[in-house]
Amino acid sequence: MEDKGISKTEVFRQLKEFKKKDMTHRSGKILGSMCTCPHPVGLRAYQMFLESNLGDPGLFKGTKAMEDEVITLLGDLLGKQDIHGHIITGGTEANIMAMRAARNSAKLENPGIKDPEIIVPKSAHFSFKKAADMLCLNIMEAKLDSNYKVDVNSIEEMLSKNTVAVVAVAGTTELGKVDPVEDISNICLENNIYLHVDAAFGGYSIPFLTEIGYEFPKFDFKLKGVCSITIDPHKMGLAPIPTGGILFREKKYLDAMSIETPYLTEDRQSTIVGTRTGASTAATWALMKYLGREGYKKVSNQCMEITKLLYEGIIESGFEMVTEPQLNIVAFKSKDISVDELARRLENLGWAVSKSSYPRAIRVIVMPHIKEKHVKAFIEDLKSLNL
Amino acid sequence: MEDKGISKTEVFRQLKEFKKKDMTHRSGKILGSMCTCPHPVGLRAYQMFLESNLGDPGLFKGTKAMEDEVITLLGDLLGKQDIHGHIITGGTEANIMAMRAARNSAKLENPGIKDPEIIVPKSAHFSFKKAADMLCLNIMEAKLDSNYKVDVNSIEEMLSKNTVAVVAVAGTTELGKVDPVEDISNICLENNIYLHVDAAFGGYSIPFLTEIGYEFPKFDFKLKGVCSITIDPHKMGLAPIPTGGILFREKKYLDAMSIETPYLTEDRQSTIVGTRTGASTAATWALMKYLGREGYKKVSNQCMEITKLLYEGIIESGFEMVTEPQLNIVAFKSKDISVDELARRLENLGWAVSKSSYPRAIRVIVMPHIKEKHVKAFIEDLKSLNL
Repeated sequence: MEDKGISKTEVFRQLKEFKKKDMTHRSGKILGSMCTCPHPVGLRAYQMFLESNLGDPGLFKGTKAMEDEVITLLGDLLGKQDIHGHIITGGTEANIMAMRAARNSAKLENPGIKDPEIIVPKSAHFSFKKAADMLCLNIMEAKLDSNYKVDVNSIEEMLSKNTVAVVAVAGTTELGKVDPVEDISNICLENNIYLHVDAAFGGYSIPFLTEIGYEFPKFDFKLKGVCSITIDPHKMGLAPIPTGGILFREKKYLDAMSIETPYLTEDRQSTIVGTRTGASTAATWALMKYLGREGYKKVSNQCMEITKLLYEGIIESGFEMVTEPQLNIVAFKSKDISVDELARRLENLGWAVSKSSYPRAIRVIVMPHIKEKHVKAFIEDLKSLNL
Repeated sequence: MEDKGISKTEVFRQLKEFKKKDMTHRSGKILGSMCTCPHPVGLRAYQMFLESNLGDPGLFKGTKAMEDEVITLLGDLLGKQDIHGHIITGGTEANIMAMRAARNSAKLENPGIKDPEIIVPKSAHFSFKKAADMLCLNIMEAKLDSNYKVDVNSIEEMLSKNTVAVVAVAGTTELGKVDPVEDISNICLENNIYLHVDAAFGGYSIPFLTEIGYEFPKFDFKLKGVCSITIDPHKMGLAPIPTGGILFREKKYLDAMSIETPYLTEDRQSTIVGTRTGASTAATWALMKYLGREGYKKVSNQCMEITKLLYEGIIESGFEMVTEPQLNIVAFKSKDISVDELARRLENLGWAVSKSSYPRAIRVIVMPHIKEKHVKAFIEDLKSLNL
């Protein structure tokens, strides 16, 4: 039977039906995601560069120039202008690249390493488990302190001749905590060990909140031990998916994992993805230029203000915080019913909440699409549960 | 100093300046890329779903339903409707996923494997070198025959107790050749070894060209030994970047590499990328529905017709083919000057050609953006070189 396709009208009618089944960020009902409504300026820039492929940068010299500029801007934001990196698909690709750079660099320095190990906080994102499986690394989980930040002593105890990388987190996925990176940086410097900071979530807010007066520990390239940082424009940077960022202190880390590309307009490639959209770079560039630091300050400050509202409302409704929020993530539970049961009841009321695994709690990420009215409605619903 | 950002007008003026420095597919000057102008229907579908994240599919149930449907459509195209897979970033992520599935499955069956090996044709894409480095696999390159297809005997000689995967290619990156997959499938079945077919380039054209009457060897799931296939919608499928596809014969291959995802709306994740745009799925779905098999037949047939024109024109201009084209890739050289020098002269005339590494040649991929008028102009320029 011939398949001549269906009409354009019918294709888009069916697409709209599919879309109706998707939730929207704009509804304010997505409480458990680190993604958000992309900013219109980022969206338009993204759409302008949908044809561009940074996997073949000789063909797209304008996009490549933009990528170079945006990497410098991100480096500047994170304490070191003279930096090397790429705009990639997101935090997972960034974290895997960092672990690969660390492993390959350690093997270059010390070819005797047989069973390379990485030490990550128990709070680290699951992409490090993925990286460990992919890259044949043993993964050691360092303990957390009572505030769910990594226990530096636990890291120190785990160090061995096989350690190829230590990971610290600036804005943990589940609770938004910032690890004591300065102490870890000193330990890594003393022991000549690669330190990667996963700031996928916090990278686009900690620097701005610090300028406003919030207090955070140091976490970026100003600390000499930090070798690489993950920072995700598609989280608090307001860019569309897929837009991640990976920055390295030295070019040698990119070189340590570059693969020869015989037929392309660049000679070697260090990203995991090969053909790589330039649209993500354009969105990141446009948003940094348009919003400027002042614009991003407003965005992160507003998220913190709404976080406070939510925090107070949850306590007032009789629920328990599992920890004090440090960034725009609130985690709480009920004295009376389990986290699973609480999640179920909230889902029945239309809220897409997420559950943290350690500690078990309901986790709300106050992304820029969560407005005051959504928080108020959520608190009303919490109260209506009569717990 | 306060950075208040720049105006929207100024942002887009600067973006346009960057864009002017990029080449366009529409110009017909990009002769060495496997990407092309995305089809307008795919672009519009892509733009409709820019907010959707298949890394958290419980929030985007419409997009998830579309992905399930599109995987079945791709499976149907490649000989097996009942198939498992994902729409991902491109051929590299697909090939790495396949090698990871193969390695992990082999280790589950035989935990004694110490130094896992993969056997790939010398003509395989460089993503397999990337996969080997990442996944700690030894990579063995099987020889090619005089037509630059893999030599099946060479594969057989390389098999060992450490072999965890064999790779065959349906549409090699440099020359567009289709390996004798049926023989390789039989060998892999006999030896109980995982066979992956990289049809990133050929997957969206060989099935259509076969229906028109072109002759190709079997290469898909109809061959019982084939465990997985890479097929790239952002190449001959006309979708925007990033849009790749990976299909597995059995779900166990996805399971063998799945990682627990503690806080998301799915429990486990097998893709490399975590947060994953649903826009690519929407574009793939829309194009398959809109164009139908008849539409794709026209696209691939037209590319082959123009390939013939180019082939004849190159011979007429006194250049040498290094091999007969099997798909829409033409590779040639000059008797008088080196490939590098020929590439330089063509670049001076504005053509972005690519050079194949084995054999050394100028390589032109006749993607859908290359029209008859571009080929005629190129032939004129070849003649004007007076070689």
